[in-house]
Amino acid sequence: MRTRPLKVALLGCGVVGSEVARIMTTHAADLAARIGAPVELAGVAVRRPDRVRAGIDPSLVTTDATALVKRGDIDVVVEVIGGIEPARTLITTAFQHGASVVSANKALIAQDGAALHAAAEEQGRDLYYEAAVAGAIPLIRPLRESMAGDKVNRVLGIVNGTTNFILDKMDTTGAGYQEALDEATALGYAEADPTADVEGFDAAAKAAILSGIAFHSRVLLDDVYREGMTEVTAADFASAKEMGCTIKLLAICERAADGGSVTARVHPAMIPLTHPLASVRGAYNAVFVESEAAGQLMFYGPGAGGSPTASAVLGDLVAVCRNRLAGATGPGDSAYAALPVSPMGEVVTRYHISLDVADKPGVLAQVATVFAEHGVSIDTVRQQGKDGEASLVVVTHRASDASLSGVVEALRGLDTVRGVASIMRVEGE
Amino acid sequence: MRTRPLKVALLGCGVVGSEVARIMTTHAADLAARIGAPVELAGVAVRRPDRVRAGIDPSLVTTDATALVKRGDIDVVVEVIGGIEPARTLITTAFQHGASVVSANKALIAQDGAALHAAAEEQGRDLYYEAAVAGAIPLIRPLRESMAGDKVNRVLGIVNGTTNFILDKMDTTGAGYQEALDEATALGYAEADPTADVEGFDAAAKAAILSGIAFHSRVLLDDVYREGMTEVTAADFASAKEMGCTIKLLAICERAADGGSVTARVHPAMIPLTHPLASVRGAYNAVFVESEAAGQLMFYGPGAGGSPTASAVLGDLVAVCRNRLAGATGPGDSAYAALPVSPMGEVVTRYHISLDVADKPGVLAQVATVFAEHGVSIDTVRQQGKDGEASLVVVTHRASDASLSGVVEALRGLDTVRGVASIMRVEGE
Repeated sequence: MRTRPLKVALLGCGVVGSEVARIMTTHAADLAARIGAPVELAGVAVRRPDRVRAGIDPSLVTTDATALVKRGDIDVVVEVIGGIEPARTLITTAFQHGASVVSANKALIAQDGAALHAAAEEQGRDLYYEAAVAGAIPLIRPLRESMAGDKVNRVLGIVNGTTNFILDKMDTTGAGYQEALDEATALGYAEADPTADVEGFDAAAKAAILSGIAFHSRVLLDDVYREGMTEVTAADFASAKEMGCTIKLLAICERAADGGSVTARVHPAMIPLTHPLASVRGAYNAVFVESEAAGQLMFYGPGAGGSPTASAVLGDLVAVCRNRLAGATGPGDSAYAALPVSPMGEVVTRYHISLDVADKPGVLAQVATVFAEHGVSIDTVRQQGKDGEASLVVVTHRASDASLSGVVEALRGLDTVRGVASIMRVEGE
Repeated sequence: MRTRPLKVALLGCGVVGSEVARIMTTHAADLAARIGAPVELAGVAVRRPDRVRAGIDPSLVTTDATALVKRGDIDVVVEVIGGIEPARTLITTAFQHGASVVSANKALIAQDGAALHAAAEEQGRDLYYEAAVAGAIPLIRPLRESMAGDKVNRVLGIVNGTTNFILDKMDTTGAGYQEALDEATALGYAEADPTADVEGFDAAAKAAILSGIAFHSRVLLDDVYREGMTEVTAADFASAKEMGCTIKLLAICERAADGGSVTARVHPAMIPLTHPLASVRGAYNAVFVESEAAGQLMFYGPGAGGSPTASAVLGDLVAVCRNRLAGATGPGDSAYAALPVSPMGEVVTRYHISLDVADKPGVLAQVATVFAEHGVSIDTVRQQGKDGEASLVVVTHRASDASLSGVVEALRGLDTVRGVASIMRVEGE
């Protein structure tokens, strides 16, 4: 084994960073044996140096992250600051000064992954970010490496623990959205401002990263259709149950049937209770991958938290250090297929639509005509009357999102339709 | 991209080999883009050259596997023959003649993994075998690489599709073992001689491989305790249901509580219906991994079959070819921790024991005394009388296998115990 240690600079020492530092210390001998050389924490950049950091040598702590990544003797920079800046500039600077980078930064990778990969490649360095998607779950490496000889057709995942906790709570207790969110906040599963989670921004960033890797193409954050889950109601869960389904916020990356394009989207959807994703409870994440040769695979585990995220970061750190010792780099960016991303209108799936309608004869015929005129075939209709009002629940066969939008617009124009109570896609069948 | 192709020799062209060859042809452009150079099928060694092999150039087919691996211009040998010989000699010869090796051979790796890794390392070549465990499911790579910065404490898996199909059938239909086996045979899930599957030999080989990798130690096939599932009865499933459990044939690799040793075992066990492994249906495989930092992860997918296995083989092929181009090798054998393997007697778990007893007063007291004398604490006891006979179902708290064996021996010596109907371990709680 090489005795001269590899030097690691840690940018950020919050929940994840402090756990990375702790494991680097407590498991130093194991890491050295697995890498083939010891790793040494050479500096820790933080914003608030006066905070007590158990187990970290105070002389390593600095507020000058830029100086740290410019030192020139750093082998690997671990970026767990999050957000776009200063993370982006620090990573780019790190490459320029000869370091490889391990990052847990989903927002940055989703937005600037291509440029950062290019910067890494130019310097012959690695950029790894297993922790950016689904926390501890090995997903980027399996997609990029284990499935490199296969053709991925679909990635369908629960990639946000906060929203899964809320939806699971609504499902199991009958709670409404606000009540479930309040509990998630009280338990620390949701942040004070939960927008990034509940509006699907977090999941959309992960969908962009996953679809780029899965389809060897460039999928930007803006390419991902996004719908949050704040409007999911207890009534939606009741409807889902009647269909033998539950509701999950899904990130869905698909290759079009003709293979010539891809789509990526995040939205709440009904999935059958028999689907493996349906039983993913609490804040857990799980990602279902469908490929030509392997068939259906699922990866399941904790999608967030200090220790799980640190596990993924350290796995990358070991890999990058090994590459460093071998004078090689791991598999980098792969966008050779350059498949275009189709708009949401071209997505084909099934829909569950609840309508409030007038309780009089002929309504069903009118509604059915609208579906037929837009070429959307109806699978089942359920009618329920209540006090002069009635509701109509329509489940369609597979149709394009554009056709369905046409249907909904036309339905809203009908006198007998008082309102479209909810529209939800049905996935995983 | 390099234009000179990497040359691949395929040893074996059965269900898996023919699929590997097919995908190499139909997906040649994708493979080339992902590797950075084209790959060329340079030779196919088979036993019966007269069999028609669709899509394979007959001029590539040979019966002389030894000459093929000795050619000297082969970059990667893909071994999908199975069994110990001639596979072992061919792989060793391949290393000596400069090739790296991708194998799907669980029996060989379990038996001779250390020697083969040493041969690879001596020549600076790779030995990859993702397909040897759990078919298409990325498992070896995640354990070896993604979790390289973590400490795995437990691997608990359904790693044999045939037995899972049989047990699932027994569970869902109430069928007996023979009936379910017959159906598995008729559907092609079980071989004419199902011994390797139903007696747990196949799963034991996988347990040896997995525990070696998970614990960075040497675990041999003989170190793995093995019990088949041929004696699981419909009555056992009824008992399991009463406990809110089902029965699976599990491969279990564990680090002892004090961290100083490991155990590896294969046997049928009850697991709670709420455990993610309980809902693994049909011939699917799934492996649950518990580690210090990541927590609980699960990997799920098809554990066998031509296409799924080929997916894993091709993922390895891409990785090995990339290493080849980079002049590097991937992470190889890691047994530095050198943890000893403890015997089965030291395994600590819970037990479900069914006894046929005389239906008279005092029996329960006698039985309970035996457990107490051996230091095995009882969790629950259920007594059922029927026609002068009675049955007693005891579920214990955690106890060592040795203590439990002592209990069983003593119970068999009691006049009032007519027989020990079944003993089953309870896992996954």
